[in-house]
This record gives sequence, structure tokens and C-alpha cells, in this order.
Amino acid sequence: MKKPILAAVILFTSVSLFAQRANYVQYVNPLIGTQKMGHTYPGATVPFGSVQLSPDTDEQPHNIGGKYNKEAYRYCAGYQYNDTSIVGFSHTHFSGTGHSDLGDFLIMPTVGPLQLEPGSKDDPRTGFRSAFSHANEKAEPAYYRVKLVDDNILAEMTATTRVGFHQYTFLNQRENSPPTRGGVAAASADGVVGAAHGTDTDAHIILDLMHGIYNYEDKNVWTFVRVENDHTVTGYRQTNGWARTRTVYFAMEFSKPFKSYGFKNFGKEDYKGFWRKFDQTRNFPEMAGKQIRAYFDFDAAPNEKVQIKFAISPVSTEGAISNLRSEIPDWDFERVKRESQAAWERELSKIAITTIDESDKTNFYTALYHAMLSPTVYMDTDGQYKGLDQNVHSTMRKPAREQGLNSQRPQQALTNVRASASGGTDFTNYTTFSLWDTYRALHPLLNIIQPARNRDMVRSMLAHYDQSVHHMLPVWSHYANENWCMIGYHSVSVIADAIVTGNLTGAEAMKALEASAQTARTKYYDGLEYYMRLGYVPEDKNTSSVSKTLEYAYDDWAIAQAAKKLGRTDIYNEFNKRSANWKNVYDASSGFMRPKMADGNFAAKFDPLKTEGQGFIEGNAWNYSLYVPHDPEAMIAMMGGKQKFAARLDELFTMHLPDEFFAETEDITREGIIGGYIHGNEPAHHVAYLYNWTDQPWKTQERVRMILDHQYHPTPDGLGGNDDCGQMSAWYLFSALGFYPVAPGSGQYSLGSPLIRSADIKLENGRTLRIEAANQSDKNVYVQSVSLNGRKLDRRYITNAEIMRGGKLQFIMGNTPPYTSQKREQ
Amino acid sequence: MKKPILAAVILFTSVSLFAQRANYVQYVNPLIGTQKMGHTYPGATVPFGSVQLSPDTDEQPHNIGGKYNKEAYRYCAGYQYNDTSIVGFSHTHFSGTGHSDLGDFLIMPTVGPLQLEPGSKDDPRTGFRSAFSHANEKAEPAYYRVKLVDDNILAEMTATTRVGFHQYTFLNQRENSPPTRGGVAAASADGVVGAAHGTDTDAHIILDLMHGIYNYEDKNVWTFVRVENDHTVTGYRQTNGWARTRTVYFAMEFSKPFKSYGFKNFGKEDYKGFWRKFDQTRNFPEMAGKQIRAYFDFDAAPNEKVQIKFAISPVSTEGAISNLRSEIPDWDFERVKRESQAAWERELSKIAITTIDESDKTNFYTALYHAMLSPTVYMDTDGQYKGLDQNVHSTMRKPAREQGLNSQRPQQALTNVRASASGGTDFTNYTTFSLWDTYRALHPLLNIIQPARNRDMVRSMLAHYDQSVHHMLPVWSHYANENWCMIGYHSVSVIADAIVTGNLTGAEAMKALEASAQTARTKYYDGLEYYMRLGYVPEDKNTSSVSKTLEYAYDDWAIAQAAKKLGRTDIYNEFNKRSANWKNVYDASSGFMRPKMADGNFAAKFDPLKTEGQGFIEGNAWNYSLYVPHDPEAMIAMMGGKQKFAARLDELFTMHLPDEFFAETEDITREGIIGGYIHGNEPAHHVAYLYNWTDQPWKTQERVRMILDHQYHPTPDGLGGNDDCGQMSAWYLFSALGFYPVAPGSGQYSLGSPLIRSADIKLENGRTLRIEAANQSDKNVYVQSVSLNGRKLDRRYITNAEIMRGGKLQFIMGNTPPYTSQKREQ
Repeated sequence: MKKPILAAVILFTSVSLFAQRANYVQYVNPLIGTQKMGHTYPGATVPFGSVQLSPDTDEQPHNIGGKYNKEAYRYCAGYQYNDTSIVGFSHTHFSGTGHSDLGDFLIMPTVGPLQLEPGSKDDPRTGFRSAFSHANEKAEPAYYRVKLVDDNILAEMTATTRVGFHQYTFLNQRENSPPTRGGVAAASADGVVGAAHGTDTDAHIILDLMHGIYNYEDKNVWTFVRVENDHTVTGYRQTNGWARTRTVYFAMEFSKPFKSYGFKNFGKEDYKGFWRKFDQTRNFPEMAGKQIRAYFDFDAAPNEKVQIKFAISPVSTEGAISNLRSEIPDWDFERVKRESQAAWERELSKIAITTIDESDKTNFYTALYHAMLSPTVYMDTDGQYKGLDQNVHSTMRKPAREQGLNSQRPQQALTNVRASASGGTDFTNYTTFSLWDTYRALHPLLNIIQPARNRDMVRSMLAHYDQSVHHMLPVWSHYANENWCMIGYHSVSVIADAIVTGNLTGAEAMKALEASAQTARTKYYDGLEYYMRLGYVPEDKNTSSVSKTLEYAYDDWAIAQAAKKLGRTDIYNEFNKRSANWKNVYDASSGFMRPKMADGNFAAKFDPLKTEGQGFIEGNAWNYSLYVPHDPEAMIAMMGGKQKFAARLDELFTMHLPDEFFAETEDITREGIIGGYIHGNEPAHHVAYLYNWTDQPWKTQERVRMILDHQYHPTPDGLGGNDDCGQMSAWYLFSALGFYPVAPGSGQYSLGSPLIRSADIKLENGRTLRIEAANQSDKNVYVQSVSLNGRKLDRRYITNAEIMRGGKLQFIMGNTPPYTSQKREQ
Repeated sequence: MKKPILAAVILFTSVSLFAQRANYVQYVNPLIGTQKMGHTYPGATVPFGSVQLSPDTDEQPHNIGGKYNKEAYRYCAGYQYNDTSIVGFSHTHFSGTGHSDLGDFLIMPTVGPLQLEPGSKDDPRTGFRSAFSHANEKAEPAYYRVKLVDDNILAEMTATTRVGFHQYTFLNQRENSPPTRGGVAAASADGVVGAAHGTDTDAHIILDLMHGIYNYEDKNVWTFVRVENDHTVTGYRQTNGWARTRTVYFAMEFSKPFKSYGFKNFGKEDYKGFWRKFDQTRNFPEMAGKQIRAYFDFDAAPNEKVQIKFAISPVSTEGAISNLRSEIPDWDFERVKRESQAAWERELSKIAITTIDESDKTNFYTALYHAMLSPTVYMDTDGQYKGLDQNVHSTMRKPAREQGLNSQRPQQALTNVRASASGGTDFTNYTTFSLWDTYRALHPLLNIIQPARNRDMVRSMLAHYDQSVHHMLPVWSHYANENWCMIGYHSVSVIADAIVTGNLTGAEAMKALEASAQTARTKYYDGLEYYMRLGYVPEDKNTSSVSKTLEYAYDDWAIAQAAKKLGRTDIYNEFNKRSANWKNVYDASSGFMRPKMADGNFAAKFDPLKTEGQGFIEGNAWNYSLYVPHDPEAMIAMMGGKQKFAARLDELFTMHLPDEFFAETEDITREGIIGGYIHGNEPAHHVAYLYNWTDQPWKTQERVRMILDHQYHPTPDGLGGNDDCGQMSAWYLFSALGFYPVAPGSGQYSLGSPLIRSADIKLENGRTLRIEAANQSDKNVYVQSVSLNGRKLDRRYITNAEIMRGGKLQFIMGNTPPYTSQKREQ
């Protein structure tokens, strides 16, 4: 009688363990993309967290003597897998960008004589850097661990939304003798070794305010540090970089009081004033300037742990303190790690997949992880945040003074009137909108699996709009700044997608539509005045004119779709008309989209393989000419019909792109290319799906599976180009699930070929969409038939409404295209 | 029968006019002190106003190439009377300081071709400067007018607390032809003259964010401008100067929309980012950088007035807009001028005097005006202000997040706990506390005639203390900064004066006492650790050691008096003991206070006429040795008794100070000296009253009248030294009224010789103290007797309680010292 009971207990235990570990977190490898051009970071962060606490392996300046330093590019995320030393751990990182900023507040623990210079990458012992090895490194969602070899320190870190939690274990330093650092070695020559007397070690925590990503001379506009007491430090860093005027405030608490501390100001000081009364370098509790490093001294017993909680705020040091106290009230590192990993587990489990190959789960869940790093939360726990107008705003109901600028005279109305739909309501404010990338698939993905967050992201865009002196929605929203990076006004696509799918409704939707239209009418923005007058951007007036014309046309179509949904015929008519402007840059003689001059003539010189100076940006005419996602039928017709178009796609995927042209293609490795198709950058992300508009849809299927296979690997170099704040990953996720949003705002997703065997998408509305791929295998990439809730689909797309209703989407896979389909369509 | 009625009407009318004009404002001449070293400014401001809108006649940098530029000193207040051109009108000025900062947001109207360089002082036509003449200039409280000759523009300005109101009349420009500016002349050579076509003039308003007082390269940390609409501009200026990290926000409204506008960035730009998409120089609504000038273009009809309202805020541009709207809701320049002058009239009428000589009224009311310029209000109309910790605080009840840092572990308590007496209560927050100067007489004066304000000033000091990471009361409180200027911790004197006189009571008084004691125990502050250990500051450890020892001793005595009043025996004992430390630097062999070394020996080299390197600051041993205001009896005994001491004072007032030593005496003109007595700087301000502690009190009387006569004139060069935020003026006011606070915190005022014939001091408690000087004349400087409310005073001081009770203080004056007194006391 005992056995069955025991079996039940065992069963219960293992189920319970499984439930506890559930465990999608195990499939995430944050190191994916940290080698070559993925530009991801391996450190600790929570979903959409403000803090990204991650190791930086170098600090290449963006400019040296006013000139661009190409090496900086490799350090967009601070970390390069091939490096062998770590300079420290900083608290803010972009994921996957091809331009950068941040890297705020570098922390580094050291032992022995104090070193306040980082030292060189190749010889880390010349400074406070340390060598490390991947053998002693572990990266998980919300957890990163590495052994700092030079000083025998185990560095561990986890994070909550606004707080980074460091844990440094000063391992037995006797293991570390003879001392490895230059300074210590010199001291030991005199017979005095810091770490040797007694059992305690001279330990230091360095706080480097000079460090930053894409730094350059004068990037630090101002920094400020206050030692509030023997274990609490506050301050801020204000920079002028990609974000023109960015300030991040911090509050830092140590688990153990420091015994002494100090500062060094490495900057020039024009004027010291009466501060010369003091020795500000040692145990003096405040310091300000442009180039400051601080240090805090401890006696560390063997294997003693020193912990640091480091909170950031967009508002004030007071806000940072409040964030710190409310997010991590105790010193329980393991609890925080566990709860932050549980937060990841909750997010990752929203899509439960089964696969043929276990390594696909690593690709999938790491992509899902990368797709939930940004946009990032940008407000204090009490709802306060800095706005684009540099004033402090609140997502809570606003105090009287924020009722805004009410013009008292009948002149042009003031711009930042707050009597808006987004004013007065509670929402989570986000920043880090890399919209040229993320409107394509990331936001459409979030609109499905994170509709509440995506709605708040739209609200954040509307707050940005309210605060914009240009009356513009964000182009690249960046810590209370607009950095204007790349082209288009793709907020309107995200908004249209949310409106058309019914995720954004009512007065908010109407306001968002009006904001979209207003944005698209900003004459001085990037050739728009010409575009509005001539129907295209003339290359002789504004470069990258074809890319701009094509993207404006798509964006205008998206606005029109939202207007249609909301019954605003006026706006629909205005922008529907504009959405045909792509036709104005099509050159029938070459068969490519081609730059046109203000006089109406196409540019004389033109090479569709080249990118630079050809009217495009980050993509050549071969790729970019296909960018009419909102009207493939018309485009295909214009390009000679389905057959010819399919052949053209075939050529694109099979051609050879000579090195000289590849060199002009930004942000990707050689592996990021398939033939002439550039997957490692965004403009062609929809291209594989265009076969669906020809008679050869199975080529979409085989190309998509090929891209999934070729372009994503479960290795540090697994991404063929910048992950771009999750857009590359979102492409993977959609495509692996079997569909893709070719034209966000259409409410439709073009069907491809699923990689998964099954997926349960657990929707916020409580429903589940189950996707099944029967007969799934590496070879069975061809879709024989698709059925939705048992009814066969006779079209090549599904709709958002179908997804959100839940049910079952079943693909029947096979190793050849279905005969009937071939027959009919060829 | 008609005549009497007419006479009555006339009488009524004139009385009514008189009542309306009352008119103490007429006696104020803001130009007094603008020549030589008074360092006052002539512009428009209201009592204790945040805005001081005033012409700047030059912009000498404080540093050139990292080296001090002596010329800057003359421009501490922006304006020098002898100059013949004006560079523009800026919004913030210190009054009378001997070091400087501010000069924020220079506005200048021009006509003709745009000039964005100021041009040279000697040839103003080379830039946007203009020549002016004192003949076309008028300075009144809250009103300043000048004709800008080069461009034929009448500039007028008034102000409210936080808003400067400009009115520029573009006079008929045809009167001004041929065009006077270089640029226009050049244009006219081509036959094109900007101002000539039509009747309108090309007019410009320049907003110069590069301009500043005590500027230097890199002083501008960051500046930001937003053109909100066609008549509203906002922004900020952040500087690193005397205040290490000061930011002033602004909002600016034009009465007439500008037709176009632009920016020029004169700074180097390391990194422009994607802003290069735009032409930011013309009609682009935002600009940021370190060296920016903006301009706004108008067509000005002949004699058209263009008005500007310019608000500042310590908090945000939103705060500035709110200040602007709430303080000046309309465009009625005359109303604002009238009401702001009425505000002055209310303040000035608190002391109604009659005098023998009408010009004494000019001296008196101008001094009273100068005594009510600072401290300045530092908060928005809604009570928000930036604190010393760089967080935004409110004088209103605080939101939850401001409940502060509550340490969660039993380590040293966090410093800026807000659970303080000043937290949560409503008060007006002030800045600009030049305490080394103003503790002597200005604050004691305010404590009598402005007790509510003085109490709020103490509350502002306590807020500063709460926000200070040093746990220190202000030394020199400066726009959310501590600039640490000069020596001592004289907040404690202001606080003691308020406590001892009963103006500050209860929990607030106790907190203020504890803050005073805590401040005085800050070991790392300016030699305090040595002072506390050795009983003096050793010169070999900390320079100006004698000055510091003497001032600390007085301050400590002041703390002890407050402690006594509040029954805190512990604090009384601690600081009463310290208050005797002045004895430790008295050198009996030389008869002077003398620098002592750490080993207990006096400095070997010593010259009591010299200042530099002699252990003193801004005063030599002859003057500074007399600085024991809290125990003159003991000092006099130590210096050889009354007779010898009186002779010593005689020598001081009659000796000759050779030029070489005068040169070391800072902040004064040669006229600021009487013999060796230096009135133009503060350390000796009590000295003339010390005869009261000898047997020759009439010498106090004659010296005081001599100083009143010699050192104050109703002319631009009427001040012999820096007015020092009103301290020089407060000396005048007290002395002219017949008494002076030798030792603030004693509650006593030493009697001198009144200059007025009568004075009615209208106290806030509703009572009036009437002072009468019978037989007053220029020669009758000797007090024959003094009676209070009819009872003869048999002492040489009156008390604060006696003043605050009101009544009549009568001096009987005569041309020789009274016989009995001479007889008795010699």
C-alpha cells in the first residue's frame, strides 16, 4: 500500500518543483548577441526595467578630439564577448542599438592599494579593471555573476525595475598572493602588502562618474555626489550626447558602513571659489564637477560580502532614495534575485512553446527576453518623471500648476497645453523608443502579448507629444529627450496598430490620431515640406530621400487606417492620398525606387547595389525598393507583375553582394546577409513575406525558415546584426510562430512557416491562442494547409481579432509545397 | 465765500496727493553706490525681490585663461556709473557684494541689421551695445529708464517679485538717420538700409544666455531655450561659479508676436548628433548648448512699444510660467510700476524721519532701500523651491516622498531628515545670505522693522541646514548653493538675535539652537577642529587664523545667549566656554591680537598695519584686534584699561594708513577710511561704539556723526565701500537713528548720536517707537541726555524689549559733551 502513496508524493514533488522552476528562464541566455554586432548586454535587468546593471568591458570614446572613433561602435552595449577584462558594472544600457549613450554610474570593487584609473584593456592590472573569463561567468535573466580574477572578487548582481543590487564577495585574498596588481606588487617590494596584514583586506568600491558609453570630452555636462552618511551616497550625472540634455539621479546604499572615502576630480577646474577652504579629496561629503571618481574604503574579512543597492531616478536624488526604499527594503540578495527571475518567468510563460530542437527554445526565449527589455520604464515609483520639456510631470492626477500654459491673448495657442486625454490619468511612463526599428514587429508583438503595456507606451508617446515644442510624437524617445535618430515618424504606425486592433479607443484614440496627423504635418521635419508639396522628398534638397518618401508613405497609410477606424474622413482622405506617394519615386526604366530631384528628374547616377549617396539609408535599392508594405499588390503590378516580382525576390535572396557594397551596409555582420537580402538591418524585414502576394507563397515559407535557421543561433555571436531594442528578436518570435505583421495598422499578419511544434499564447484577456504545426520538422517547412478553430483558412493572413479571440491555429506541414497550391499558383 | 471753499478743495487735493504720493520713494536714489566700490545696481526691483532687472555696462570675465581678471571686480553689480554704454539688461544682481555671480538672461533691443556680438565698450556701435547718457537716465525704486542712444530706443523697466517687465519704445527711427550702427552704415553703402524702407523699423530683441557677471569660459554648464509659440519663450541657464551648481529657469512673454527668430551657438560642439537634421539657427523652436544667443525680430512702427514680461524660477520653466501669469496677468506697465512702487512706499514708510538737511533723507531712504534688497525671495508663487540638496522642496505641507531618508539600520542617521520644525509649515524661502556682512547690523535691523521676514529668513536658514550634508547652517547661502564665502558661522548670530529678542520661539527656536550648536561643531570646517582642541585657530594650519578665532568666539557667545534664553544649560556651558577663546590670540607684548602657531608661539613676523599674511582677512590688526563685541569690558581690561583703550581708538581714527597697506584692504575706496579706521569693510563696524565702554562715550557720538557725514553721500560715489547686501546701509540706518547692535544676541543696542531730527519706527506689532533729537544740528552731535518714555536713561544702551514696546526715545543734543558726564567719566 505504501508504494502508490510514495509515487504520488514523488509525482507531487516533481510537479511542484516543475511549477516552481517552470522554467522558461532557464532557456534565456543573455550572452546571445554580445559578440560581434548584436550589441546586447549580458547584465541583470527585469522586464522593461529602468536599470540594466551590466559589465562594461571597455570605454571607447565616441569622439576623440572632435573626431568620430569607430571603435566606440562595438561598445554600444558596453560589453564585447571577446574582451578579457571588465572595467566595471554600470547601471544603464541600451539593448541592441547601433548608436549609443548611457553607461551611467560605473561600480568596481578592488582590493589592495587604491587605483583610480581604469587601466588598459590589455593589461588590466594597470588600473582598477580586472581580467575575467567566460568560464567564471554566468548570465541569466535578472542575474549576472563573474569572478574578477585580478582581485579574487566574486561579483554578482540582480535588479528590480529601478534598483541594481550588487553583491561582491571578497574571496580569501591569501589565495591571491603574491598580489597581482601593479600597485600591490610595488608595495610588496617594500615588504608591505595591503592585503597581508591581519586577515582583513583593504577593499574599495569605486564609483566612476566619468565612465559612460559613447563618451567624449565634455560629454559630462555636470556630475554631483553627496555622501549622505557612512553608507548612503546620492548624486546625479548630466550628459550631452545622443540625448542632448540627459540627467540621471542616483541613490546608493552600502550594506556595511565604509571606513573612509574620497574623490578625485580629473576635470579642469576654471574656478574653484571658496571650496578651496576644504580638502575635498578625503572624507568630505560633497563633490561636483565634470570628471569625478569616488571611492569607498572597507576592511573586508575573507569571503565577506559587501552589498550595494543602487537606485536611479529621472527626477531627483529624493526620487532615487524613494525608489530604493520602496523596491528593495531589505538586504536579501537571494530574495530579490528570485522575485526578479519570477517576474521574467511570468512574462516568458506568456508564450509556451514546444519545439523539435531544444536549442530553438534558447533562441525563442532569448528572443522573447530581448523583446521585453525596452521600451524602459521612465518614472519614479510615485509616478513622477521628467518630461521632454524638462519639467517634472506625474502620471498621477496633476497638481494645479500643471494645468499648463493658457494663453491669455488670441495669438497662437501655447504648445504644451496639458488638457489632454493622457493628462490626469494613471499610466506607466516609458522611454527608449527606437521606433524606426521597433514599429515593424516589436510593437505589433507587444500589442498582442502585452496590450496593456503597449497602450501605456502609446500614452507615453502622447505625453511626449504634449511636451514637444514641435507638436511631434517621438522619433526616438530617449530619457526626456528626442534624439531624432533615423527617419520617418513611426510612432504613428504603433498608434495605428493599437487603434485598428481596438487596443486604444475613445478619446485617447482620437487624440492619438490627431497627434499622428499633426506630427506628419511638421513642415521643417526632414524634407516633409517638400514631400507634402511635391509628393516626394527631392534628393537634392534632403538626402536619403527615397527611404524617407517610402517610409512617410507607409506612415501616412497607417494614419489613414486609424482615421478610417475612428470615422475621421478628413484625416483619412488627407493621408490616404499621401500614402500613394511611394509611386513618385519608382523609376520604371530601372525597375527600382530611385532618388528624384526637385525638378522632377531622377538622379542621373544610380547604383542599386550601393547605399551611400543613392537616396537610401541603411539599405540599398535592391532591398529598400520593396518597401511598400501597405500596398504590395500595386507595387508588384508596377514592378511587372507577380511572376517577375517573385523572380526579383529570388534574385535578391541568391545574388552576391560584393564586399565594397556590404561595407556600406551598417549594423550587420557578413552573416547578417543572405544573398543580397539584408536581414541584419530593418528595411527588408518584411521582404520574405512578399512572396505571399505572388503565386509562390511557399517561397515565403522556405525563406522564413531559412532566415530563422541562418540568422539566429544560441551563441554569443548568434545575432547577425544589431538586435535594435528587440526588433530583430521580434522578427524571430513572429516568424517562429508562423505569421508576421507586414503592414502594422492593417490588423493582418502574413502567414509564413512556423518553427515551433506548438505554442500557447496566453493573452491578457484570459484567452489562449494555441498554434500547432503538425508534421513539424527541419525539412517540413512547407505549409500544406492552415486551419483556424477547425476551419480551413483560404487566405494567407490571419487577423488581430482572430488572434485575440484565442482558439487554435493549426498548420499542416510538409516537405514540399502542396501540389494544388503549386499547380494553381504557378 | 468762494475763496475758503476753493482753499479747502486745494488743501484737500494736496493732502490727498500727498497721501497718494506719501512719498518716501522720491528720496531713494538707486544710483547711489553705482560709482567706484559701492557695487550697487540701479535697476528695477521690489523689496527682497527675486528679480533685479538692471542695466549692465560691461561683461568683464572673472577669469581669462584660468587667471583672475581684476577688472571683473568693478562689475560685481553689472553697472559702473562712469561707463558710457550699456550692453543690455539682465535679471539677477547682487547688491553691494565684493565677489559676484548672476547677471542672468541679458535682454537688449536693437534696430537695423542684426548684430549678435555685444561690441566693445568704447565703440558700442561695433555690436548690440548702445551708448547712453546719465542725462537720459532715471532710476527709482522698481523703475529704471534710459535712452539707448545708438538705436534711439527708450528702455523702461519695472518688476514684481519674480517678474521683470520691460518696455521698449522704438522712437521715430528717421530721427536716427543716417543709421548709426556699423552694420547699417555698411548696408547703406549698397543703397540698402534696413530701417529706411516703409515706416516700420527692423527691430530685434536679443536674449543673451552667454552673458553673466563674473563669467568665465565654461561657467555656463548648460543653457536651454524653447520657443513655445510666437510670443513665449522658456529655458534655463545652469552655471558653475560662485554658486557651484546654480540653475535659473525663465519664461518670457512678448506683448507682440515676433515675425521670426533665431539662435547662434558660439560654443564648441563636440557632438551634434541627429540635430544636424535641422537648421537650428532660424525659426527652429529649441536650442541647447553652452554659449547661446537668441534673437527675435519685429517690425516696429515709429514710437511703437514692445513689452516683455520675464519671469524666473528656481524650480522649472513651468514654475516660471506660473510665476509670470500669477504676478503680471496683463500688459499694464504703468499699473505694475505703480503697484511695485507702492510696495516700496509701504516698506520705506516703516521709518518716517524728519531731518535738518533734506539730503539726509536721500541718504536715509536710499540706505533703507538698500537694506531691503536682500536676502531675496527664492521660491515660486506656489511655495516650491530648489534646496541645497538640489531637490525641489516646498514651503507648503510636504508630499509623502519628502518625509525623507529614514535609515533602516542602526548606523549613523541620515542627514536630511525632514521631520523638522521647519518642515510642513508655510514660510517664505529666501536666499542671498551674505552673512559675514549682514549678521552685524542688517539682520538686527530686520529683526526690529521686519520681524516676520527675519523669522522666515531664519526658517530659510533652517531649511538650508536640513538640506545640508554638512549639518551646517548657511555661511553664504546662494541660490540653492553654499558658496562658503568669508569666515565664521554667523547664521548663529542671526538666530541668537531672533531668539534672545523673542522673535523666534518654541520648537523652532530649540531646533535653531541645536542647528547652531551642530554647525559650530563641524570639525572639518575652516580650522574648527583646531579651534575646538587648542582654543584658537593656528596660523600654520589655517590662514586668517586670528579673524577666525575672534569671530568663532563671538559666534559661540551668541549660541550661548540663545541657549541661556531657552534653558539649555548644556549648550550654554559648551559655548560660553568657547566664547572666551579670543583671549588666546591676544599678544600682550604687542597689544594686538596676533596669529599663533600650533606650538603655542605667536607668529614671529607681524605687522599690525598689514593685512595679507598677518592672520587676518579684509582688515588689519589695528582694526580686527578690537573684534570682541561680546565682551568689550574684558578686552579693554586686557588691553590696558579704559583710558589706554580710548587713546588707542583715538589713534586708530587719526593715524595715517600708508598706501601700501591700504592697497591690501579690500572692497573699499580711499574715502572708505578715516585715519586707520576702515569703515568701507565690516570688521570694524562696531568700533566707533566701543568708546561707550570707556569713560569717553561722547567720542562714540562724534565719531559716529563723523562717519555718517564722511562715508555716506547722496551721489553715485556716495558709498565708500561695498554696500555688502545692505550691511553698510544698515550701519547708516541704526547710527542715524541713534543706536547700534554691537553684539547681536545681547538684545542691547549701544547708544550713539542720532542724525535725524525725529523718527517714527512703525513696528509690526502695531506700536511706534518715536525717536526725537532735541536741539539737533550738524554741530550738536553730543548727547546731553537720553530719556525713554520720559524717564532718563542712566545707561549707554537700550534694549530690544524697550524698542518693541514703542514709546518715545528722546535725545537732548548739544555742541559739547555734557559737563557732568565729562567730569564723572574722565
